[in-house]
Amino acid sequence: MTSTPTPLPGLHAVVPAGGAGTRLWPLSRSGRPKFLLDLTGAGSSLLQQTWARLVPLTGPGRMLVVTGVAHAEAVAGQLPALAPGNLLAEPSPRESAAAICLAAAVVRTRDPEAVIGSFAADHVIRDVPAFHRAVTEAVSTAQQGYVVTIGVTPDRPATAYGYIRAGKPLEVPGAPSALAVERFVEKPDAATAEAYLAEGGYRWNAGMFVSRADVLLDQLRRHRPALYDGLAEIAAGWDGPHRAELLDRVWPGLEKVAIDYAVAEPAADAGAVAVVPADLGWDDVGDFSSLAALLPPGGNGDGPGGRASADRDAADRDATGLRVLGDRARVLSLDATGVVAGAGDRLIAVLGVDDVVVVDTPDAVLVTTRDRAQEVKKLVDRLRGDGRTELL
Amino acid sequence: MTSTPTPLPGLHAVVPAGGAGTRLWPLSRSGRPKFLLDLTGAGSSLLQQTWARLVPLTGPGRMLVVTGVAHAEAVAGQLPALAPGNLLAEPSPRESAAAICLAAAVVRTRDPEAVIGSFAADHVIRDVPAFHRAVTEAVSTAQQGYVVTIGVTPDRPATAYGYIRAGKPLEVPGAPSALAVERFVEKPDAATAEAYLAEGGYRWNAGMFVSRADVLLDQLRRHRPALYDGLAEIAAGWDGPHRAELLDRVWPGLEKVAIDYAVAEPAADAGAVAVVPADLGWDDVGDFSSLAALLPPGGNGDGPGGRASADRDAADRDATGLRVLGDRARVLSLDATGVVAGAGDRLIAVLGVDDVVVVDTPDAVLVTTRDRAQEVKKLVDRLRGDGRTELL
Repeated sequence: MTSTPTPLPGLHAVVPAGGAGTRLWPLSRSGRPKFLLDLTGAGSSLLQQTWARLVPLTGPGRMLVVTGVAHAEAVAGQLPALAPGNLLAEPSPRESAAAICLAAAVVRTRDPEAVIGSFAADHVIRDVPAFHRAVTEAVSTAQQGYVVTIGVTPDRPATAYGYIRAGKPLEVPGAPSALAVERFVEKPDAATAEAYLAEGGYRWNAGMFVSRADVLLDQLRRHRPALYDGLAEIAAGWDGPHRAELLDRVWPGLEKVAIDYAVAEPAADAGAVAVVPADLGWDDVGDFSSLAALLPPGGNGDGPGGRASADRDAADRDATGLRVLGDRARVLSLDATGVVAGAGDRLIAVLGVDDVVVVDTPDAVLVTTRDRAQEVKKLVDRLRGDGRTELL
Repeated sequence: MTSTPTPLPGLHAVVPAGGAGTRLWPLSRSGRPKFLLDLTGAGSSLLQQTWARLVPLTGPGRMLVVTGVAHAEAVAGQLPALAPGNLLAEPSPRESAAAICLAAAVVRTRDPEAVIGSFAADHVIRDVPAFHRAVTEAVSTAQQGYVVTIGVTPDRPATAYGYIRAGKPLEVPGAPSALAVERFVEKPDAATAEAYLAEGGYRWNAGMFVSRADVLLDQLRRHRPALYDGLAEIAAGWDGPHRAELLDRVWPGLEKVAIDYAVAEPAADAGAVAVVPADLGWDDVGDFSSLAALLPPGGNGDGPGGRASADRDAADRDATGLRVLGDRARVLSLDATGVVAGAGDRLIAVLGVDDVVVVDTPDAVLVTTRDRAQEVKKLVDRLRGDGRTELL
């Protein structure tokens, strides 16, 4: 284990870039979803950060992205080093099993010994060296024939994530942390989440899987044979002249199923899944409250100029309490905490509000609170119900 | 007294149209101040509503508006029936004594017997028949030589207004309600305002003055002789060829003083001021909290479409609790109360916020609460201090 990443021979990274991020509306839109956005003020999108985190482990030639046809051009634009043959454009959404296992099947045709690692395009990992160490252990474990997941050490009793119940150490060479997985458990209620945290044997399921491609596909064949057959047929012709014809004919009939149900859970029941626990500073940026926690504190947005001393305390408070995504000079705050996200070029003024969420875009503005940020999805549902698709 | 207004012979209405309305920023701007805005959803500006309220008492030929040169064109555009010679454009701001007394002096040169009534351009009066009755009594009282103010019956212990302490009935013919004024009092603190309300002898000073032009000017000459001389000189040439030259030469040297200090208070000390108390449904639309109270309740802004029954209660609450200025179809609310003002064409979504104030304009958005609405002025002060005049 080292904090300097070294390429891991045989590892191919698969990045499923899907999901609308409706709880981040109106920043995240169907035409410009969460993974294409810079949501941390880093100057790069979540997808680009995911690329930057993975490419030291694989090199650019072993990076694959699976996305919808509608976003293929944007993905290619954001990732100029992505090989055209490694951008897998899905003709229609077919859930994560089809997306990830198609990539696995394509990789297997190129490299029968390949290990694939699947990592979401729209998550944040603050401790990248820890991530590299965890992936390195996961690859060593995968090479022993396990389907491996990276289990995030919980720091709170979250109810928004599924959990992984870990078992005994596997004592795999090169992977001292690897444990057997007893089972995956669904998102718990608050009391259960508290119990998981207290018990200590549970990790968050962050949707990160590492496996030999042939092992993963063998599990898929065992549990979803029709889906396996379809993907194998497409993959066999992927690098030839008939890719489009195969996609047109086979893809629409594929089963829509999450990889958790199609592979991970049945494999866990069979004792074939391992977990590498890791403390990554991981976040799925699930809503604006998460977003606020990821943004750095900073001084308030008004420029130099006269200010009454009576305002200083409030300004100091803003400096630590109000997070800004976008141009801080366009935010004018007084006695306010929470988060302001400005995607337009307007001034955003906030006065005397606590834990507020203000999101400004050229065609929609959202005002809510961090407590209610999870419910933004309800607004999106209403817009959809009202047929206002131009705002989605 | 009648609820059908009849023209009052000799009455000329003077409407000072000034004041930036900074507490209504970003709706109200220096280039498009409060009086030019439709702030009640009536389909007409406060200035136009003021005109409509007064013109039945005077006819269009005896309506005068005093405004800054920067707004003269906009005023003329909103009031096509205003005679060009009755639009008094001030070369620079010189406070209310100069504005109102210039109008009085111009009117006096045209009609030595005239009574003038001065009424702000940016207030709301919901009971127009009561207003007409009060003005009718005030004119009768003014014809006896009094400077008359209309005193608004308080319905709460307001600290934002000055008060008028009334004395004994004057028993003026045609003005049964008229009382002597003992004194004007400054804006009180909360405890004093409570005491005023309990005592009952105090009315709000809403800045409405009715007086014979010669009586008003005689008071001005007595208390501010230099200001009187300057205004008399300008007025003597107003309807002749030298108006511009006179304004250029004389106006810049005029004293800046409020009419309350220059005339009303000293006249009250001399026993020359009367008050007609009235219950008008008056409001000065001083901030967004006042604005919210003036707007009608209504259904929430989302159109037809599927909605879960669990959302119905929240929608019903919105129907009574969230006021909207602007296009209600552009507001999407769930479990929200307060006020939303949309001056642009964007969607404004509010979720789970109470007594919120959201103001959306093409170049600035404001988020605050009704409780803090008075402090919007502080934001404007900061923008001015920072030299961001394009936003003011």
